This record gives sequence, structure tokens and C-alpha cells, in this order.
Amino acid sequence: MMVVMREGATEEQVEHVIDRLEKAGLGAHLSRGQFKTVIGVIGEREAISKVPLEALPGVESIIPIQKPYKFVSREFQGEDTVIDVGGHLIGGDNFAVIAGPCSVETEAQMKLAARKVKEAGATFLRGGAFKPRTSPYSFQGLGESGLKMLATARAETGLPIVTELLDVRDVDIVCEYADVIQIGTRNMQNFILLLEAGRTGKPIVLKRGFGSTVDELLMAAEYVVKGGSTQIILCERGIRTFEKATRNTLDLSMIPIVKKLSHLPVIVDPSHATGKNELVPPMSLAALAAGADGLMIEVHPNPEEAWCDGPQSLDLPAFAELMAMIKPIAAVLGKKI
Amino acid sequence: MMVVMREGATEEQVEHVIDRLEKAGLGAHLSRGQFKTVIGVIGEREAISKVPLEALPGVESIIPIQKPYKFVSREFQGEDTVIDVGGHLIGGDNFAVIAGPCSVETEAQMKLAARKVKEAGATFLRGGAFKPRTSPYSFQGLGESGLKMLATARAETGLPIVTELLDVRDVDIVCEYADVIQIGTRNMQNFILLLEAGRTGKPIVLKRGFGSTVDELLMAAEYVVKGGSTQIILCERGIRTFEKATRNTLDLSMIPIVKKLSHLPVIVDPSHATGKNELVPPMSLAALAAGADGLMIEVHPNPEEAWCDGPQSLDLPAFAELMAMIKPIAAVLGKKI
Amino acid sequence: MMVVMREGATEEQVEHVIDRLEKAGLGAHLSRGQFKTVIGVIGEREAISKVPLEALPGVESIIPIQKPYKFVSREFQGEDTVIDVGGHLIGGDNFAVIAGPCSVETEAQMKLAARKVKEAGATFLRGGAFKPRTSPYSFQGLGESGLKMLATARAETGLPIVTELLDVRDVDIVCEYADVIQIGTRNMQNFILLLEAGRTGKPIVLKRGFGSTVDELLMAAEYVVKGGSTQIILCERGIRTFEKATRNTLDLSMIPIVKKLSHLPVIVDPSHATGKNELVPPMSLAALAAGADGLMIEVHPNPEEAWCDGPQSLDLPAFAELMAMIKPIAAVLGKKI
Amino acid sequence: MMVVMREGATEEQVEHVIDRLEKAGLGAHLSRGQFKTVIGVIGEREAISKVPLEALPGVESIIPIQKPYKFVSREFQGEDTVIDVGGHLIGGDNFAVIAGPCSVETEAQMKLAARKVKEAGATFLRGGAFKPRTSPYSFQGLGESGLKMLATARAETGLPIVTELLDVRDVDIVCEYADVIQIGTRNMQNFILLLEAGRTGKPIVLKRGFGSTVDELLMAAEYVVKGGSTQIILCERGIRTFEKATRNTLDLSMIPIVKKLSHLPVIVDPSHATGKNELVPPMSLAALAAGADGLMIEVHPNPEEAWCDGPQSLDLPAFAELMAMIKPIAAVLGKKI
Repeated sequence: MMVVMREGATEEQVEHVIDRLEKAGLGAHLSRGQFKTVIGVIGEREAISKVPLEALPGVESIIPIQKPYKFVSREFQGEDTVIDVGGHLIGGDNFAVIAGPCSVETEAQMKLAARKVKEAGATFLRGGAFKPRTSPYSFQGLGESGLKMLATARAETGLPIVTELLDVRDVDIVCEYADVIQIGTRNMQNFILLLEAGRTGKPIVLKRGFGSTVDELLMAAEYVVKGGSTQIILCERGIRTFEKATRNTLDLSMIPIVKKLSHLPVIVDPSHATGKNELVPPMSLAALAAGADGLMIEVHPNPEEAWCDGPQSLDLPAFAELMAMIKPIAAVLGKKI
Repeated sequence: MMVVMREGATEEQVEHVIDRLEKAGLGAHLSRGQFKTVIGVIGEREAISKVPLEALPGVESIIPIQKPYKFVSREFQGEDTVIDVGGHLIGGDNFAVIAGPCSVETEAQMKLAARKVKEAGATFLRGGAFKPRTSPYSFQGLGESGLKMLATARAETGLPIVTELLDVRDVDIVCEYADVIQIGTRNMQNFILLLEAGRTGKPIVLKRGFGSTVDELLMAAEYVVKGGSTQIILCERGIRTFEKATRNTLDLSMIPIVKKLSHLPVIVDPSHATGKNELVPPMSLAALAAGADGLMIEVHPNPEEAWCDGPQSLDLPAFAELMAMIKPIAAVLGKKI
Repeated sequence: MMVVMREGATEEQVEHVIDRLEKAGLGAHLSRGQFKTVIGVIGEREAISKVPLEALPGVESIIPIQKPYKFVSREFQGEDTVIDVGGHLIGGDNFAVIAGPCSVETEAQMKLAARKVKEAGATFLRGGAFKPRTSPYSFQGLGESGLKMLATARAETGLPIVTELLDVRDVDIVCEYADVIQIGTRNMQNFILLLEAGRTGKPIVLKRGFGSTVDELLMAAEYVVKGGSTQIILCERGIRTFEKATRNTLDLSMIPIVKKLSHLPVIVDPSHATGKNELVPPMSLAALAAGADGLMIEVHPNPEEAWCDGPQSLDLPAFAELMAMIKPIAAVLGKKI
Repeated sequence: MMVVMREGATEEQVEHVIDRLEKAGLGAHLSRGQFKTVIGVIGEREAISKVPLEALPGVESIIPIQKPYKFVSREFQGEDTVIDVGGHLIGGDNFAVIAGPCSVETEAQMKLAARKVKEAGATFLRGGAFKPRTSPYSFQGLGESGLKMLATARAETGLPIVTELLDVRDVDIVCEYADVIQIGTRNMQNFILLLEAGRTGKPIVLKRGFGSTVDELLMAAEYVVKGGSTQIILCERGIRTFEKATRNTLDLSMIPIVKKLSHLPVIVDPSHATGKNELVPPMSLAALAAGADGLMIEVHPNPEEAWCDGPQSLDLPAFAELMAMIKPIAAVLGKKI
């Protein structure tokens, strides 16, 4: 961390900063420029975070040098984390395709969806039993009976289940059925939920908050590690910008950035990012080409009758067609599906 | 709601939309323009929300006409909601000043802060006992012992307490001490927490998500109403933009917008919005002039020693000086403090 | 266009709106919902734009139905525009690769760069002679002598030249040398420059403003058409968002959106979007996979000595390596380079 | 400027950076942290900007310490710039009110508007003769005949004229009539226009680009200074964000920020920021309270008949009512109108 002093900061102010640092057991390294003085701070991030440096007189700004996360960083672990869910892999050279409807509706719907997405090449089944909806008047999910339908579909197809956890009081029931727990975009900084999800030890899909930075996503992952799980799959799903031609702006540049900063796999959800099913195939291919470790795609046997997110769901033939494009490009890139 | 058909949509597609609407018990009103056909949908929002109109063939887009919230809307209640917390009022002509440290640290700190902010003219005391921190390595709050220190400070000064609720499992303990429950920016769309907060029946300060729109803020308030409390104070605290000169961009225009759309009071937190104590006084005055019903300001007896948010906290003399500016401007605007 | 009246708008207000529309020679189509009245406006966009509908009493909002652009729209021309620059094609099935240094520096640099990018597979040569720089203290380009160096490099390699026009007074000199004129991101809404660029009749690369929407980009293209050129290549180069891990956020979803709205080709500049050379290869592949018609890439024989934009420039081996990845993926997608 | 080396950067890489700095005549100051090495660069900004530090091997990032602008900075000139336009002052304790219609339409309209805004207390008259319009199909302004109508209104009222310059070829004609030249938001980084505007030596109102940062605004002002004028009035008019409840998000926090960084006066245009006339009064008062040096407000004798921007224009009684609120608040704040 570097402490930049204001132009015209007095000698006493500089010394006061150094004094505060030394009292906290930290090293201080002075560097005087033509106009400004900069003090380098040397020590552990926990110790540094306890000194309110920006509040000290004469201080203009604080510039962090070290990254605020540790266990999820590429420095902490050089090789890629590869997550193994009953033989289905995510990370490294393994490209995962998580497909299924937005919400679980009926047993017939789930079984049909599961069978068909598997046929087309999907490796995981998604489906929401607890739904976070912007409106209290919208369908909120089937709850445990939805989880049971997911389990039935798994029993028939062998596809592991990815499903969302919303409430810390539902941890046990969700864990009973889910293979992978999803934390939604609105809960990326629900730190209580992150800790509890981590405590399950299950693999966690952690969706990026639509208003959150890559650094904050990695800090949220650090909370999951603190809870107890290191099996974390980061998921880009679009961020909020001024552009309204798509529901969100899919930030694919974050993929190579995250790959550099962290050893965790990163997947992309083009369905929620764009909100329009016709944009899902091109953005899926783009995510693959940008280096993603997988996709999470909404597929519904009959989007026109979907209980939620119909407009962004692919139907079964469209999903099969997309998979037919994904495979040869994955082959060029050296990715296994 | 208006359904806009694509240019070149067929007659069958138009009829299919109308058919779907009528089967759902909704009215359809056809309007043919020079290039495009538009179908007006007439009926209750719950019934409309169940038809996946955007997924129907030939549909280009859906344009909502009616607002998605109901109980918090100005149409539902014409006169301003005025919230009464033991005689301290927020809303209408009453301007509330909620002041205090970011986090509760010691009994001495809380008592001193409470006494001094009251002297300067504050009407509520704030202080965090449960702290949502971006980093798992930062101080997470004192928990119940912090709540007790708040209660002691209240006993001495008579100032009602505003404090944050983070975890649904803490509802009882927080309710035991708090007069007003705060929902933080990261939890604005933690719908589970909103419902539980609403169930307490207590007044709720609902902070706007830093990545959330005004409409989403009002929908979040609608969740609190669904939970059971109509005593809701909306709080602007800055949104995320490309501008990095301030931590967030304080969106003061939302004040007159919210006043038009809703009957709920709206206050402003300039401390978190700007992240710099020197910006707090001008933005406090600006919030007042823009029509806010109150302010939420971080004040610390000794910002240089604060356990969190020191750089954005006013010290006691700065807060007193600010109050001395607020009073005459409030008088011009016809606001009572 | 739809005029939405406020709840409680009076009958006179509704009639006043209709009256104003009819006086302007426009049709009005009334639709009464449960709560709100909506008036559909029927007529030409020029006539509609002259009535200040939002200022009329009782009007809540105006909802445009028709797109504001005409000649660049897919409705106006169904088939893709394919631009032919001396046999080098952009659009349709043709994938263009425009490569070269940020700024023209010396004849030797340009000749080496041109020869090498051609060898690797580039189809156009880029290089700036007039540079728009954020700082007046930065290098502003070589001017005409830079244009001459570009021409020399073209003479040797046959690669057509893409170079930026900044000043309407330079139109003649730039036209003397350039095959394709570039309008930079900061000038996307410099309408005077757009008209003059259009008047040259040359192909125009129109870069999206970093703060501009897709609709505004298409309106800017409409200005170029009004000037006189229909040979327009749209270029995505990243937009401003809260995320600071990359210089801009590359909005690849705009590619399929633009393809749907317009017949014009769209290319991507991953160098300016990301600002970091290591992100250029993955984002180039992603742009190709998302359906782009080409790429514009900064390549420098020696980035460490570049007079500008060194950090985002690929060196020659890195560019050759990228081209070796682009070719097989283009083949899968049915694109010719 | 600080050069941060990657973790694991080699000794040769560190020495190579230092070597490059020293060859450019710059000082280098080494600081080794626990994990990373930081090199402080000492020297003039022009010399530093010529070394492509980010492209050197082993370099992770570059952190600017010194501000990139010079003449407009508070360090360069401690006291506030006060601009005097024929006795009408902007800056220091002087609050300017610039009012008038969006575009000049007729002599009668301009004379009426000028007389009435003067009566209500305005100190400058605005009106556009050259209009930058998003659509080529919208009214583009009356040109020179519009300038003549402005001059007539000035002759009658004594109010100095503020009007926009769009085209470098119009500099002479605009200078013949204008007292203050406005550079619009879309041209904030039209560097050619900034230089020519500066060359006139006239006072310049420089509007912030809707996608531009405060630092970029100050750099644009630096271009005007380089052109030759130091009489610059910065103008906040809203920035682009995800929030669509207002046309732009008015960033009032930039006022105290600019006051700290620069000696130039800063005014606010609430009309373009919000796009709705009912939001203009509260945001005008907020701007004043936040410390602005003036306002630029669209006022039209008959907004319902305005040729452009009717919905955001105040009518004459609304403007007079606003002035009646501005005066007592300005008095509390010690500002003279």
C-alpha cells in the first residue's frame, strides 16, 4: 500500500503517518517526488487494514498495491482448480455445459428437459426451486417439491444438479438434493449466505453481482473459502451499464482477467446477460472463444409456456444446434466437453 | 402493458397473442400503425405477469405502462407517509438527522457521540453492531454487545436507534434493541431479509442498492410491505458509475422522482456516497435543497481512530458546523428539524 | 409512437393531445386501459418529431415504437452491405483484419509493420497520422508526412490504408492518401465531421462513442449517409462502465444486436477496448465467434518503443500467433479472410 | 508516477525499467515491499509520458501520482478564477444565472424570453443558433440569423449572450455575436474545436461530456488554455448511468471535487441533466447548495410550442418562482447574484 501525501503536506504530517504505521508494527518507506511525498507501507494486509490512513491529516489518497484476496489468488495457487462433480469436470481443459429451465415447473417438464439437454451434450442440469424475483407478485418457486423433481430428473439422466440457495435456513434441504449450490447475482455480497454456503463444503457457483467489480467477485469467493469450500465456480452474467439494447452488458473481458488473477474456473450465463434467446448462441460461442470454462444456459421444452424467463430460454432444437457449433470450436481451442 | 409486434408480423401471430391474452382473462386492444402493430393489454398486473408475452412469435418487445409496485405508489396513497418514532418524525415537513459512528466500538465512544450529535441537533442515533464488509478480513462488528452500547447511549440521550440487520436469524435480537431497522445497500434485493424485516412491523430504513434503479428500490419496498411493515424510509447512498473521483455517484435527482412516484419519505447518506468527509457538508446541503426528508451522516468523536470508515466520518465540530448551515436553509424550505 | 397519459389526466387533456396531432397532419389512435390512456401516433417520423408531445399537459411519457434511423436499418435494406476496397471485402461472409501501429512513426516502422501484418494474414493497414489525445502534452501525430509513410507502405504491400480524420479542414489531404477514413470514438457525435466524412464518398470506419448507445451509433451512421456515403463500417471499441479491471468494457452483445437492426458490417477493436495486449487475443477470438465482420488490432514491431499505446499493442509474433487461431475458427463459422 | 512490478519480476526487469527511466532523464526511486517492488518516477510529466512504461517486461501497472493537468489546477493558481463579462461576474462569491430557450426561434420569442428572464433575475441569456442534434432529421438551428436575434435581445436587455460553437469554420461568425462561447457535451473531446475556441480569447463554457470523468473535463479545459483562453467556466450537465428514471444522472458531487482540484468556476445545467422541467427547480437549488457558481437553465415563453427541448424547459412563471427560492438560499450561503 502506498500513502500519497498532499502537495504541501508538512513534515509533521509525514512523520505522524510513519509513526502510526510503526506503532501498528508496519514498515514505512519514504519516497519524495518533485511535488509529492509517497510512503510505502510494508506488512500484512490485516494489520494494514486496521490503520485509518486516509483519515490522517495531510494524506491525499491511499493506493493499494497488494490484492485484497488471498486464497483465491493465482499467487496462492499456480495451477487451475479443476472441480469434479461425480466425474463431471469444470476447469483446466474441461468445458462444462449447464443447461435447463429457469424454474422447475413439473416433473414431466424436468424429465423432458434433462433428457434432451443431455442428448445434445449438456453435462449438468440446472433448475430453480427457490427463485429470487424482483417483484413479490411473481412466481417464487416450488420449494422442496421442485428439488424432488430435480432429483428425479438426475436419477434418470445422471446429470448433476445445480440449483440456487436463497435463505440460510434452507441450507439443509438444498444440500439434500443439490450437487452444486448456486449463489445468485443479488446475493453475491450477502456475506452471511456466502459463509453458510461455504460451510456445506459443496461446489458453489458464485454469480457476479450485476453491479459488482471483478475484485469484489473474488472477495466474495474469499468469503466462501472462509466458510469452508474451495470448490468455487465463478460466473459472469452481465453487468449494469447505460446501454439498454441488452438487459445487461456481458463482460467477457473479465474471463482472461480472472484467469490471470485467480486459479478458479469461470463460466458464463448468456441467458441472463442478454435476456433474449436469439443472442444466446452468438454470446455462448464468444464466451467459449474468450476462454470460459463453461456455460450456463436456460433451455425450456416450450419457452412460450415457461413460468419465468421464457423470452431468454432456448428451445430444445435451438440448444442442440448451438451444441453442434460449440463442439468444433472447443476442439480448435483444445477444450474437452 | 403494450405488446409491440415486429414489422412484418403475420396476421396469425397477432391473433395468437390476442388469443393468449384472452385465455388468461385479459383484454386486448389492437392498434395498427403505419409500420407496426401494437396490442394494448388490459387487466391486473398479476394476471399479465403470467403470460410470457415476449416469447410469443412475432413479438418485438413489451412496454410496461403500469408501474410494477402498488402499495408504495403515490396512486395508492396520495398524502406523504410520516413516520413517528417515539415522537421523532420523518416525512412530510419533518427533516430527520440520523448521525453517529459507522460501527459501535466502545460504550464511551457511543455515549460521547450520542451526546454530542444530539447537542448539535441530530434526531436519531446510528451505529452498526453487525457490519457487512467487502473483505472477510475486516472488522465484522461487535454483535449483541454493540447493540447494548447503543441502548445505553439511547437511555442517556433519548435518541432513537437506527442499526443494521444482516441475518434473518438475528431478527429477534436486533428487534430487542433497535427502534429503526436498517437494510444495507448490498441487501436491497435480499428478498428473504426484506420479508423478515417487514414482519417485525418496525420502521425500516431501506438503502438503495448501489447497482439498482429507483424502480427496483420501490419494488424492494413493496417486499417489505408484503412482509408487514408500511413504515419504510428509502435511502439514497450513491450508485456505481464510471466516475471514480468519488466512491459512488450520489443521485440526488432520485429525490423528486421518488416523491412523485411514492408516498414514502426519502433520506440521503452522503457519507457512503462520497467516501470523503470533506464532501459530506456540501452534499448534505444539496440533499436538503433537493427535497430530501432527512440525512444519515457518519460522525465519529475521533475519525483518526475509527475502526471503520474513518475517512468519510465527520468529527464532532464539523458536524456541529454543518448543522448550523442546515438549519437556516431548512427554514427557507419550510422544513422542521 | 405512443403517448401515455398520466392517471387522472382529464378528457380535455386527452383531446388537446389528439388535436395537436391532427393539426400536424398525424393520425391518433386512442386506447383506454384500466388505469391509463394511451394514444398511438401514426405518421412520418419527421412530422412527429416537430410536436413537443412531452410538454403537453397530462402527458406522462412518450414511447417510441419506430426506430429513429432509416437508411442504415435492416428494414430499409434486407441484405448485408459488403464493402469492397480494391478487392478487399468487409461484410457478408468476409472477415477483415485491419492491423498496424497506433501512430505512424517512421517510414521504416510502417514498412516493417505492413510487410509483417500482411504476411500473417491482415487485409488492411492501420496507422494514425492525426491523433486525438486526451492530453495536450501528448504526441499529436506526424500529420501529412505520416500519411505519406502510410502510402509508401501501401505501395509496397498492396494493403489498403485506414486512417483517422480529426478536422474538417483536413478532408482533402486525408482523402488524398486514405482508402478508408476512420472517425474516432470521441468524434462519433461530431456531426459536422460526420457530414464532411460522408461527403467524401469514401468507406468510413465509424467507431462507437465510449459513452454512446447502439441506437446513437446508428444515428451517427445516418448522418454519414446524409453526407453522402453508404459505405459505413461500424466499430465496437468498448464502453465506459464501473468496472476498472479493463480500460473499457467490450460490449460484444452489440454485434448480434446491430446485425438485426442494420445491414452495415460491424468490426471490433479489442486493443482500445481492453488497453492490455494480453487481452487482445482472447477478445479477438470472442469477437469473431460473436459474429463480427472483422477486427482492428494494434500491432507494433516493437511495442516497448511505441510512441503511443505500447501497452495494448501486439508485437509481430503475437499477432501471427493470433492469426493462426483466427483462421480455423473462421473456417468453422463459414467466414472468409 | 509509480511503477508497480509484478510479483516475481526479475532483477533484470527492475533494472531495465530504471535504465529506461534514466535514459529519459528521469529519476527512479526503488521501494521493495513484502511481495512487490514499486519504482517511483521523478521528473516532468511531458518527459514521463514519452516512456511506454506499461509495455516494459515485468511491469504490472502504472499509478499516476501527479495530476495530468497543470494550468487549470488549484496548485497552479490558489485563488478562484472570477470571470467578468461586461460587469457580469462568474466565480468566487458570484452566482450566475444563464437562462433562455434551447434554440433561437424568432426575434419575438428571444426578446420576450430575454426581457422576462432578466426581470426574474437572470444575469446571462442563452440560446442556440447552431444545434448538435442526435438525429439528422431534427431542426439544426437558424445559423447566423439566429445569432442576430440574440444580438437584438442583448441590445434590448443588456444581458450577455452565451451560445454554442459547433464548427471550427464558424469561429469568426460566432465571435462576432457571442459574449461567451459554449462547447457542448458531445464536443468536450473535440480537441480541434477546443483549441480554436481557446484561440478566440473569449470566455468559454465547457460542458462535461456525458461519458467523461472529472479528470478528462479538466484535461479538456487544459486544451482551451493551450489554445489561448484562461476564461473557462466548467459545466456539469449529467452523466450516463444505468438509471433511466432521469435522462442523465446529475453528478453534483463533482462540484466540491472540482473546487478542490481547480480554480475554475463550475456551473450546472439541470435542464439537460434531467430532461424534465419538474425536476429543474429542486436540482437547481441542490446545485446552489452544493457550491456551484451558477446555473444554466432552459426557459421558454411557451414550452408547448418550443422547436426543441420543450419538455425540459421552464415557462416564465416557473422560472420566476425558482428565482424567488434561489435568492434567500444564496443569501444564507453568502453568494451574490
